[in-house]
Amino acid sequence: MNIRIVGRVLGFIVFFVGLFMAFPALFAWYYGGDDLQAILLSAGLTVAVGGAMVLVFRPKGELLVRDSFAVVALGWVLASAFGALPFYLSGDMPVFTDAFFESMSGFTTTGASVLARVEDLPHGLLFWRSLTHWLGGMGIIVLSLAILPMIGVGGTQLYKVEMPGPTPDKITPRVQQTAKTLWGVYLLLSAIETLLLLAGGLNLHEALCQTFGTMATGGFSTRTASIAGFNSVFVEAVVIVFMLLAGTNFTLHYHSLRGKPSSYWKSEEFRFYLGIVAVFTALLAVNNLLAGTYKAGEALRHSVFQTVSITTTTGFATADFGSWSSSAQLILLFLMFIGGCAGSTGGSIKVLRAVIILKQGLVELRKLLHPRAVIPVRIDGKGVPPGVVINILGFMFLYVGLLMLSTLAMTLMGLDLVTAFSSVAASIGNIGPGLGGVGPMEHYGHIPLAGKWLLSFCMLAGRLEIYTVLVLFTRDFWK
Amino acid sequence: MNIRIVGRVLGFIVFFVGLFMAFPALFAWYYGGDDLQAILLSAGLTVAVGGAMVLVFRPKGELLVRDSFAVVALGWVLASAFGALPFYLSGDMPVFTDAFFESMSGFTTTGASVLARVEDLPHGLLFWRSLTHWLGGMGIIVLSLAILPMIGVGGTQLYKVEMPGPTPDKITPRVQQTAKTLWGVYLLLSAIETLLLLAGGLNLHEALCQTFGTMATGGFSTRTASIAGFNSVFVEAVVIVFMLLAGTNFTLHYHSLRGKPSSYWKSEEFRFYLGIVAVFTALLAVNNLLAGTYKAGEALRHSVFQTVSITTTTGFATADFGSWSSSAQLILLFLMFIGGCAGSTGGSIKVLRAVIILKQGLVELRKLLHPRAVIPVRIDGKGVPPGVVINILGFMFLYVGLLMLSTLAMTLMGLDLVTAFSSVAASIGNIGPGLGGVGPMEHYGHIPLAGKWLLSFCMLAGRLEIYTVLVLFTRDFWK
Repeated sequence: MNIRIVGRVLGFIVFFVGLFMAFPALFAWYYGGDDLQAILLSAGLTVAVGGAMVLVFRPKGELLVRDSFAVVALGWVLASAFGALPFYLSGDMPVFTDAFFESMSGFTTTGASVLARVEDLPHGLLFWRSLTHWLGGMGIIVLSLAILPMIGVGGTQLYKVEMPGPTPDKITPRVQQTAKTLWGVYLLLSAIETLLLLAGGLNLHEALCQTFGTMATGGFSTRTASIAGFNSVFVEAVVIVFMLLAGTNFTLHYHSLRGKPSSYWKSEEFRFYLGIVAVFTALLAVNNLLAGTYKAGEALRHSVFQTVSITTTTGFATADFGSWSSSAQLILLFLMFIGGCAGSTGGSIKVLRAVIILKQGLVELRKLLHPRAVIPVRIDGKGVPPGVVINILGFMFLYVGLLMLSTLAMTLMGLDLVTAFSSVAASIGNIGPGLGGVGPMEHYGHIPLAGKWLLSFCMLAGRLEIYTVLVLFTRDFWK
Repeated sequence: MNIRIVGRVLGFIVFFVGLFMAFPALFAWYYGGDDLQAILLSAGLTVAVGGAMVLVFRPKGELLVRDSFAVVALGWVLASAFGALPFYLSGDMPVFTDAFFESMSGFTTTGASVLARVEDLPHGLLFWRSLTHWLGGMGIIVLSLAILPMIGVGGTQLYKVEMPGPTPDKITPRVQQTAKTLWGVYLLLSAIETLLLLAGGLNLHEALCQTFGTMATGGFSTRTASIAGFNSVFVEAVVIVFMLLAGTNFTLHYHSLRGKPSSYWKSEEFRFYLGIVAVFTALLAVNNLLAGTYKAGEALRHSVFQTVSITTTTGFATADFGSWSSSAQLILLFLMFIGGCAGSTGGSIKVLRAVIILKQGLVELRKLLHPRAVIPVRIDGKGVPPGVVINILGFMFLYVGLLMLSTLAMTLMGLDLVTAFSSVAASIGNIGPGLGGVGPMEHYGHIPLAGKWLLSFCMLAGRLEIYTVLVLFTRDFWK
């Protein structure tokens, strides 16, 4: 590993996390909260440490593939550790584990919270909590659309064609260009949603916080009741639309903004994504009607919101789906394993991978009858190389393996099966709320400390497509 | 499809099922039970229908690959339907669905029962119930070691090397030879276990029934409390050893009997199989000790029995593991997804597939750091072709897909999540007992009728490696 350059990049990340703490400080000052001091102290500390790292580590050589793994994984860990400072130093989360969990949940855009009552947190900290989502979302865009394709990881490999080829073994200026373009899209969509929410009657603080939670597919809200707390169909509609946009591959938005709106419909993944939302909404709505949970209008309203919220891995709630019928809960549990599109801020397995696996399964059936036939899986009319299929299936294996081992560990800490499984699934999938003891109207505060660290690890592993984190634990990596 | 030859083979299957009903008739007569008449009537009907089919369908042409799918799947369905007659006609299971469920559970060697009190069934029917296990086990041996490799399905493909190559597109006499040899091993092991159980104080009826349940990895017992009902450490030890033998690839037994006992240790799958049993036994024993469920000796005794019983997919019980700690229950739930060795009478995913998937996952991690490296997965020192790896991962996908959809259907019938999931997992994996409402000291009698049909389908699909059943639902098959 090139310690010098890795250390320098990490220094920059920490430095910028510190700079961004100026925004919550502004809100703390405006609302006259007692969190101002803690936020300023955290900002100073973070900027100082980050700055020192930048000065100490003088770059030498290039950032190679294996270095980028370290930068990505350690970058998220350091951002979360320093991002936890405001919560911890203010005394609002006196246990550092809680502060770290909340911060990691923010940066990974998970949205799982240790807070029983969100409104107890002062405005500055609430803003910082939501801002971590938004910053994490920025990181994910550059990660999933610029870095991951270059190192050939997972479903996004398909988009490698858009990168200069043959793939170079170092981070090129092209990555910066792609990142800037997509951040532009991200900023633009965020600005539009904020304006719409302001129009819907939210104040600036509320509008920005819900926007951060939406665009990053995070799920932190400024209300304990989540979006239900605003009791507004307009707000719900705006949030639904922008959750959908945030769960879409950002290159499609870019092409669309450049005058090719047909890009959306040409993308097979996007069509499947909308199809999944439509089918699951219908399933849930019918289920909620038949189970008598809601009347017609309400059933559709809550079903579409919850389907979009879970599919995009946002985790906002307008209803306590923890009290829905067990089949409705199971449907939501399934949704947790699909996720947003590749190249979106959404987490979990991703629609693209799910579609490829589905098609591969069907191909295998046809091959049984035609053993000598060569039937490639096609996406957008292009054949998917067998190496990519195996890579995806390997990813699934690691995903399920991590899920199983972590669930086991959680039950060993005394949690029941449903709470243990759904808390892990909601963490790896970066969703936030689960079922049982961690349902949408519950919180993660009562999870044992060791469980909070484990779930923090799951959030990170899920966010970084597992490979990126697990590779740090292989012997080969440290050779 | 070659209706004539398929019909004729199915006729033979039905005919032989009828003939085998003579054995339960003998026991019914010996014990003077009122089930004799129903058994004789069923036998007569079954032999007549089977005989008529053999006479009506005159063979013409060869049995091709696609015909063999129909023979295998329909053969199991017909055997189960006619096998249900004794239960139904005797009036002991007045609902045909129950009788069919019990019979399908028997022939697929699942061992899930609708009976609340097993002892209520007369001796003849009890014997027939256990005999369906043993006959199903015979069918599986020829299926997994002779037919499946020829048509290139699943993990057993690896053993194709032992078949004459290049693989012909019709069922050869060689299959008959292989089948006879392995049935010899099956008979021999069954005879030895029966003698040992007689020595352990069981009467002939009990000894044979438990042997059938063991050697077929079925799990039907003659006691409601399962093996715990005999309250004998010796009986438990015998059953453990023979469950392990039944879960082993039968070709290894054959090689061993021919003077090469080293075959066992040379097989990587067998080593993993023993390793899994050892590791999970230790995990469960420690868990049961720490949770205070048992004292030292008892903890080990029940842990080893339950681990072997679930790993081999037998489903016998010496303890109510439904009342163990939630982590212990989860460990058993994981075990339900491994299963016995390929080429054994065990069900579920099979150790060989699990090992290949595990190795493939590790290879993918190494490839991240060495993107251009070609690292094949090796089993027994031989490289596994990528096509086989994809096939196995495709199998896993179908397995999980069937599991999810069926679980959803079960929750729609009003079952809770744990009962719904574990009943489906225990059915597809051909295990028998699950958790919650279908735990080891519970039964399947209270499952809604539609649920019993669905679970029957799951048992069949799981038993026939899913592909074999699903392919019948593809358009290509009927072209």
